[in-house]
Amino acid sequence: MKNVLPFIANPDYSFAAQWVDALQRAMPGERIVPLAELDAQTRATCKVAIVANPRPEDLRELPALEWVHSVWAGVERMMRDLADSDLKIVRLVDPQLADTMAEAVLAWTLYLHRDMPRYAAQQARKQWQAHDYVRPAKKTVGLLGLGALGEAAAHRLLQAGFGVCGWSRSRKAVDGIDCYAGDAELPAMLRRSDILVCLLPLTPHTTGLLNAETLAHLPANASLINFARGLIVDDESLKAALDRAALGHAVLDVFATEPLPADSWYWAHPRVTVLPHISAPTDRETASAIVADNIRRYRDNGAIPECVDRTRGY
Amino acid sequence: MKNVLPFIANPDYSFAAQWVDALQRAMPGERIVPLAELDAQTRATCKVAIVANPRPEDLRELPALEWVHSVWAGVERMMRDLADSDLKIVRLVDPQLADTMAEAVLAWTLYLHRDMPRYAAQQARKQWQAHDYVRPAKKTVGLLGLGALGEAAAHRLLQAGFGVCGWSRSRKAVDGIDCYAGDAELPAMLRRSDILVCLLPLTPHTTGLLNAETLAHLPANASLINFARGLIVDDESLKAALDRAALGHAVLDVFATEPLPADSWYWAHPRVTVLPHISAPTDRETASAIVADNIRRYRDNGAIPECVDRTRGY
Repeated sequence: MKNVLPFIANPDYSFAAQWVDALQRAMPGERIVPLAELDAQTRATCKVAIVANPRPEDLRELPALEWVHSVWAGVERMMRDLADSDLKIVRLVDPQLADTMAEAVLAWTLYLHRDMPRYAAQQARKQWQAHDYVRPAKKTVGLLGLGALGEAAAHRLLQAGFGVCGWSRSRKAVDGIDCYAGDAELPAMLRRSDILVCLLPLTPHTTGLLNAETLAHLPANASLINFARGLIVDDESLKAALDRAALGHAVLDVFATEPLPADSWYWAHPRVTVLPHISAPTDRETASAIVADNIRRYRDNGAIPECVDRTRGY
Repeated sequence: MKNVLPFIANPDYSFAAQWVDALQRAMPGERIVPLAELDAQTRATCKVAIVANPRPEDLRELPALEWVHSVWAGVERMMRDLADSDLKIVRLVDPQLADTMAEAVLAWTLYLHRDMPRYAAQQARKQWQAHDYVRPAKKTVGLLGLGALGEAAAHRLLQAGFGVCGWSRSRKAVDGIDCYAGDAELPAMLRRSDILVCLLPLTPHTTGLLNAETLAHLPANASLINFARGLIVDDESLKAALDRAALGHAVLDVFATEPLPADSWYWAHPRVTVLPHISAPTDRETASAIVADNIRRYRDNGAIPECVDRTRGY
């Protein structure tokens, strides 16, 4: 007799069925069932569920629930929606995700380093004009966030010859890069960052962290890459910095509201590259294998993986 | 008494004075003098000169000349202009140049790999639409040319996780990549190349090498990066392949005529990225140091570095 493992997605999510398929393939010993298809008797016994930003009311349908496994790494929406609950939340930690994000950081760092936005603008006006090339060793990329994603990105950037520094809330040590920590050391790190890459989790502490005051520390003509969450950046401060060319360019993959509304100024700003949240897509195949490992260990001996720390928010 | 070392640039070249400065700094034991400033007596004695695509008539002003050192790696213009001469030509072989070119290959490969042209087009029409992500391990980059540039590029691409194959006129062996050689093996290499990168020297043999017949071997929706010389590509064949979307995108840094004329169809083609010959700018500082080393060895013991093979053309 197979264990029943409920899958609970938010109704606004389009790929729930694909997740059920991928998870089922990864866990032949479990029966993955969307919440709606579970009878009341089974609901009463489930201690674990797999979730994709579930609604609180759906979670309350499972009275015995002890913990949930998110299929995503970013859990700030669950932190907000489940603020009143003490449910244990496990988020996805997928090395493939860190690798894909590190690739994206390298790809768009090189995009800025090799002046691609400038040459695209020149092409549009049929202008043939080369610009000075500066070797990567003479530029510093600053990483906000030194968790699994930040560390993987640092490694790739060092390989490519860039100077790298990083900042995190609590002090970290990463080989080959200068690490800054805490609010007090943020300005010093920002002052060195020719290209600033945001990989922070969204928490009450990081909401609006990149604002007029902090952006002002960046060197002249610095660029910003935000691959984390839109609300970490204060939109109006960013617009002001871009409008007066204090900031040279912003590559934005994430926004306060997604999809980005058609009337957003971001779409048409000449110093902005808009991406539709594609920097590091979760791979359903590798993610399902990781969830399956965690579920197997739990079934074997009751071990619940490391949970999200609700005071930190990730 | 310092040796006199003439510097002979083509009159159409704008940065001759900057080269004289950089070369002089690198060679305090020599007196670097533009040809026009040399008296007849000195001209009669010079056995070596440093050149930037010199005119044949200027070279004839130095009757004792035995060899010239080009400040550039690409010597096809000298091959053409000096076809009747048996002057020994040394071209620049700068590891920094190979490194910068390898960076460009990685940067624009990632540009294509991460769908940047497609997302830029979507941004222009305010369209929020993510596309499937394919891991680099599932793509093959094909390198045309496996000299110093090709080898450095192969190393960077392998580091980034791409499959890599390569082709050269004579057989080469490069760790980690499948090497093809000669006309007979070109189709097999092209058939595997999701992204084809051209790093070949321009020779009679490579002129028009990428034409309707060879481009037809590429897999569906392949892309082309040309960082070598414009004349290696047959423009009309490329246009036809792009127009019918057999080829997904072309990144072109080099053209038959440079600067690219304003009436060229390349400028406005939606599947073309035009770059103004910036993939691997020669670094005057590192190049001058290499020229200086070669000149010092020559002054010490008469050793002339390896010269361009006029039958090969590079």
